Amino acid sequence: MSKTAKPLCILAGQGQLPLQVAEAARQNGRAVLVFALKGSADADFSGFQLHGLGLGEVGRALKILQKHDCHEVCMIGAVVRPDLTSLKFDLGALKVVPEILSTVIGGDDEALAGIVRFLAKRDIAIVGAHEIAPDLTATNEVLTKTHPNKADQADIARALAAARAIGTLDIGQGAISVDGRVVALEAAEGTDRMLARVAELRSVGRLRWKGQKGVLVKCAKPQQDLRVDMPCIGPDTVLKAAEAGLHGIALHAGHVLLAERDKLIDVANAHGLFICGVTPEEQDKHDAR
Amino acid sequence: MSKTAKPLCILAGQGQLPLQVAEAARQNGRAVLVFALKGSADADFSGFQLHGLGLGEVGRALKILQKHDCHEVCMIGAVVRPDLTSLKFDLGALKVVPEILSTVIGGDDEALAGIVRFLAKRDIAIVGAHEIAPDLTATNEVLTKTHPNKADQADIARALAAARAIGTLDIGQGAISVDGRVVALEAAEGTDRMLARVAELRSVGRLRWKGQKGVLVKCAKPQQDLRVDMPCIGPDTVLKAAEAGLHGIALHAGHVLLAERDKLIDVANAHGLFICGVTPEEQDKHDAR
Repeated sequence: MSKTAKPLCILAGQGQLPLQVAEAARQNGRAVLVFALKGSADADFSGFQLHGLGLGEVGRALKILQKHDCHEVCMIGAVVRPDLTSLKFDLGALKVVPEILSTVIGGDDEALAGIVRFLAKRDIAIVGAHEIAPDLTATNEVLTKTHPNKADQADIARALAAARAIGTLDIGQGAISVDGRVVALEAAEGTDRMLARVAELRSVGRLRWKGQKGVLVKCAKPQQDLRVDMPCIGPDTVLKAAEAGLHGIALHAGHVLLAERDKLIDVANAHGLFICGVTPEEQDKHDAR
Repeated sequence: MSKTAKPLCILAGQGQLPLQVAEAARQNGRAVLVFALKGSADADFSGFQLHGLGLGEVGRALKILQKHDCHEVCMIGAVVRPDLTSLKFDLGALKVVPEILSTVIGGDDEALAGIVRFLAKRDIAIVGAHEIAPDLTATNEVLTKTHPNKADQADIARALAAARAIGTLDIGQGAISVDGRVVALEAAEGTDRMLARVAELRSVGRLRWKGQKGVLVKCAKPQQDLRVDMPCIGPDTVLKAAEAGLHGIALHAGHVLLAERDKLIDVANAHGLFICGVTPEEQDKHDAR
């Protein structure tokens, strides 16, 4: 117990997920400290030891962690990508500005790997939300009343291949396939905007199908460090998938977090969508034979 | 001259390019017959022997070709993807419906390969617009006053890798990279909508940069049959790239058609954009070493 009883810091971005992870950690008997990122964090963390934190307040953050003898941080929730010119750096940050800047140039993966190295040097380990709260992670089961049919399985395979290809290039994690054709790929716009685009392409007649068809696949990048950057969906993603006319969502098992899990499944059931798991690793084994 | 003097049929989709190709063929001394696809063709073909053609009028089209002893067809201009349930088939089409339907299931490449096979059986060859009008094809030179700088070259390499990856999967031909990061990938929405999305992501602050930065790359799919499906850009694409805040456009040399070439270059110069060629084949040779 001595190890798990060590204090944990939640570095909280957008959404309810940081709160759910904080609650799971507390249930496991850990002291929890929350850094709510200004401009990103929006859940209600009352009841937790809470510090509002600007993205440039590196020095202050390190001091608070030191004061609490806290050596484990869980980064969770989307962070609004900063405009570098508007960042306010504190004195502690200024000392390490060159090191920090080198972390935010290039793709997401490079940036996050830089942050992990930066903290490791200061004796702070990053732990993944899926390690703190494994119940919030997608598994290989079907979570909904609706199950994927044969056409859905073909779309899952196509979208999965596309999502993995763009993931390998550190571009995005999501793809949508309908009727055996990939119609949308996710890059900077994110999953929700990609779904809204498909709904719009249908409404202007650029994409056409009747009823519910096609699948959104979310898949971690092969090189993705789940400790710092785990794909995530919530009830709103499911609602937008329904609005796009899709039949379901397939999630990389063990690699995607479900925000507000119960509500998410309720929304899927209310709209007749399936939510299931996929294991690209199995596909690899199959291909290697 | 006997071979080139054979009549040529232009199967015309959207835009000015079909007209430019028709004019180039006539200048080469060929008799030109234009099929203007209903719902797609919109150029002014007066002066050419012209037939309006619905997408389902296969029997009628074959009869007209036979009557003119015409055995070469050039398909050019975007075709609005048909809603299969609204297609009107003529008697000649009904005879071949199963064969036709098998051509339009799956990705673009499969569909077009099916059309080529279907026509080849009837002694009709498909010729590419770039064979009829080579002057309309992008080359490896810089067409504009502005040239790509070092940062642009890095973005060209990133976007090219992404465009080739999604091309290999028969998904799309375009990608946009800014500051070394791929921010948009093209699928069913097409290039112009992808550019509009980047402009929108900037206007809502999801993407941020000052001045003109980043590159749109258009690249043919490795398996693309240029005779039936050649990537294309026009002045409007250049204008949308300017509105998205990009610095330029790189085109797969020998594989992309320039609609309204002079106007396109004028628009680029007016907005300070570069237009240059790229040769992914060179990259392959380099990688193979």
